[in-house]
Amino acid sequence: MDKSRIEKLRLSIKEEGLDALIVASPMSIFYLTGAMIHPFERMWLLLVRADGRDTLLANKLFVFEETGIETLWHTDNDDAPVVLCAQLDGVSKLGTERDLTAKYIVPVLENCPGITISVSTAVDDLRIIKDDEELDRMRASSKLNDEVLEYAFSNVRKGMTEKELAAYVKEGFEQRGASGESFGAIVAFGANAADPHHGTDNTALKEGDCVLIDMGCVWKGYCSDMTRTRFYRSATQEQQEVYEIVRRANEAAKAMIRPGVRFCDIDATARDIITESGYGEYFTHRLGHGIGLTEHEPEDVGPANEHPVKTGMVFSIEPGIYLPGRFGVRIEDLVIVTEDGCECLNSDTRELEII
Amino acid sequence: MDKSRIEKLRLSIKEEGLDALIVASPMSIFYLTGAMIHPFERMWLLLVRADGRDTLLANKLFVFEETGIETLWHTDNDDAPVVLCAQLDGVSKLGTERDLTAKYIVPVLENCPGITISVSTAVDDLRIIKDDEELDRMRASSKLNDEVLEYAFSNVRKGMTEKELAAYVKEGFEQRGASGESFGAIVAFGANAADPHHGTDNTALKEGDCVLIDMGCVWKGYCSDMTRTRFYRSATQEQQEVYEIVRRANEAAKAMIRPGVRFCDIDATARDIITESGYGEYFTHRLGHGIGLTEHEPEDVGPANEHPVKTGMVFSIEPGIYLPGRFGVRIEDLVIVTEDGCECLNSDTRELEII
Repeated sequence: MDKSRIEKLRLSIKEEGLDALIVASPMSIFYLTGAMIHPFERMWLLLVRADGRDTLLANKLFVFEETGIETLWHTDNDDAPVVLCAQLDGVSKLGTERDLTAKYIVPVLENCPGITISVSTAVDDLRIIKDDEELDRMRASSKLNDEVLEYAFSNVRKGMTEKELAAYVKEGFEQRGASGESFGAIVAFGANAADPHHGTDNTALKEGDCVLIDMGCVWKGYCSDMTRTRFYRSATQEQQEVYEIVRRANEAAKAMIRPGVRFCDIDATARDIITESGYGEYFTHRLGHGIGLTEHEPEDVGPANEHPVKTGMVFSIEPGIYLPGRFGVRIEDLVIVTEDGCECLNSDTRELEII
Repeated sequence: MDKSRIEKLRLSIKEEGLDALIVASPMSIFYLTGAMIHPFERMWLLLVRADGRDTLLANKLFVFEETGIETLWHTDNDDAPVVLCAQLDGVSKLGTERDLTAKYIVPVLENCPGITISVSTAVDDLRIIKDDEELDRMRASSKLNDEVLEYAFSNVRKGMTEKELAAYVKEGFEQRGASGESFGAIVAFGANAADPHHGTDNTALKEGDCVLIDMGCVWKGYCSDMTRTRFYRSATQEQQEVYEIVRRANEAAKAMIRPGVRFCDIDATARDIITESGYGEYFTHRLGHGIGLTEHEPEDVGPANEHPVKTGMVFSIEPGIYLPGRFGVRIEDLVIVTEDGCECLNSDTRELEII
C-alpha cells in the first residue's frame, strides 16, 4: 500500500500538536488505506499516532484486503468503546474527524483521565486537494454526467412523471458503466422546483413547467453533480428573466475563481447579482460545496467561509432562485481550481432551452 | 401532532436526572415529531428539555410540515454548533443519543462551562417497544418480504448473476408498492455465501451452489429483513447437514423467546447447537438485531446483552454457518415478542429446498 497519504497526515497531526487522530469516516479510511467498509453500527476506526504507529479497529465480520496497517480485530461480543479506549494509552491530546459519535467520545472522556478531544480537519485538508489521478476521475465522472443529462432530456415527454424521468437518469448511468448515482437524482417539475431539495415524486409534466434535473454519478469512486433547468414547450417572460439572472450568477462566479480568492467572495459575486436583480431572498442556500469521493465535502462555497481556494480543489457552483408555489431555476457546474483560474467539468449548454 | 411519545421521553429524561436530551438521529426525530429530514451535513436536532420546552434546530432549506414544536431556524451562513450552544443555557446535565457527532459535542464541551454529556438510550427504549399500529406495519412489511422472496426464487435459472437475481427482489418490491428496499439485497452464490456481508456481484449461478438471499423492504415506514438459503440442482451431504444445524438453531432460539428471557441466552441456545455440531467457529456474528423504522436497531441479540426481552419488541433471529471458500447458510426470521412467547413474521418455509 502507498502510505504517502498517511505520512502526510502524520505531519499535520504533529503540527497540530496532537498525539493521535481518530479517522472516523469510512470514506476517509478508504482514502488513507484503500479499505472500504460500510460498518453500519459496528466500529470501524483508524487511529493514526504522531509516533508512527497506526491501528485499524475492525470488526471480524469486515472483509477487506491487506492494508499494511496493524489491524486490531474485535467481535460483536466485545464492548467496542472499551476496545478503543485501550488503544489510547499515552495519548493526552486526541484529535478526531468531526464524524466520531457520542458512542465513542463519551466513554473516551470518562475512561481516559486527562485526555482532551478536539476536532481536526487534517484529513479533510488532504482530501480537498485532488491529485492528478483523482482529477482525471472527476473529469470522467462529469463527462458521463453531461452525457446522461442529455439522454434524460431527450426522453422528456408530456405527462411523464418526475420518477419516470429520474429512471432514465439511473438507467443511463448503468448502461454507461457508472458504479451508481452519487445521489438519487432530483427531478422537479414546475412549482416543485421551488424546493431545492424536492423529493422526486409522481407529479406529471405539463406545458409551461420548468424541468429541473440535479444529478450525479460515481465513476471509479469519484462523484459528479450538476443541475440544469429547462422549460417545457414555453417559458414566460419572468421565467426567462429569472433563468438569465441565475446563468449570469453561475458564470460570473466561475469567472473569478483562481488560487487565493476567498470562498465567501465567490459566493458574494453570485449572490450580489441575484440580490441586485431583486431575487436575493429566493436564493436560500450556499453557492456550492466541495466534492470528491463523496458528493458533499468541505469546503463550503458560502458567505461564512473566508478560506482561499487552492489549486486542485474541486467544488460546485450552483446558484438558484426559488419562487414558492411557482417555479425554480438552478444551474450547477463542477470546477477544478487551476493555477490561473478554473476548469469547468461540465460542457453541457447553459443557454436557455425550451424543449 | 400526537405529543405522547415526547412526553414519555420527558419522563425518562427526568428519571435519568438530565436537564435536556439531544435527539440526533433523523429517524428518532421522525418517530417523535413526524418530521422526516435527510440533513446530510446540515444540522437537524431535537432538544427535549426536562422543564417541558422543546426545540427543533432546523436549516431553512428543510421542508417539513408543522410539528407543533418550537422550531429555531438557521441558515448555511450560521455556525451551527454555536446555534446549538446558545440553546443550552441553564443545562448542566445533558444527555444525547449516541449518534451526535464530534462536530457538535466538542464545541458544546468547550463553550458551555460545567456541562456534562452522557449517552442516553431513552429514545431507543421507547422505539424498541412497538405499539399496535407499528406492529401491524411490521407484519405487513414481512408478509410482502415473504411474497417477493418466493417471486425471486421462482426466477432463478442457471448462469444468471447475483445482480440479476437481486434485480428481481427490487422489482418485486416496487411492483407491490413497497416504498423501497430496507437495504440492498444480499444475493450470494456458492462460496460467496461464506461472507455474511457479501457484496452482490456478477458471479454466475452453477449447479451445486447454495443460493442465499438476504432481503427486506420498507412498508409504511417499517422495515422487514429475512434470509433464506436454498441449493441449486443438488446439495451435498455436508451442505444438507449444515443446513439442518442452522435450521435447528433458528427454531430452538425462537422456541425459547418470551418476556423475561435474556438476549444472551437466546443467542446461546442457537450458538450452542452450532458449536456442539462442530461449527462454532464458523458462526461469526451475533444471532440477531432489533428492527423497526430502520433495519438495524437496538437491541443486539448477542452474547454480551444481558437485558431481558419484553413484549412488543421486534428482532431478527439469524443463525449462520460460513465455510470460507466453500459455502454458507443463514436462515433469518423476524419475531415479535408476545405476552407468552413470540410471533414469527415470516411464514416462508425453512425446510431444505433444492431448486
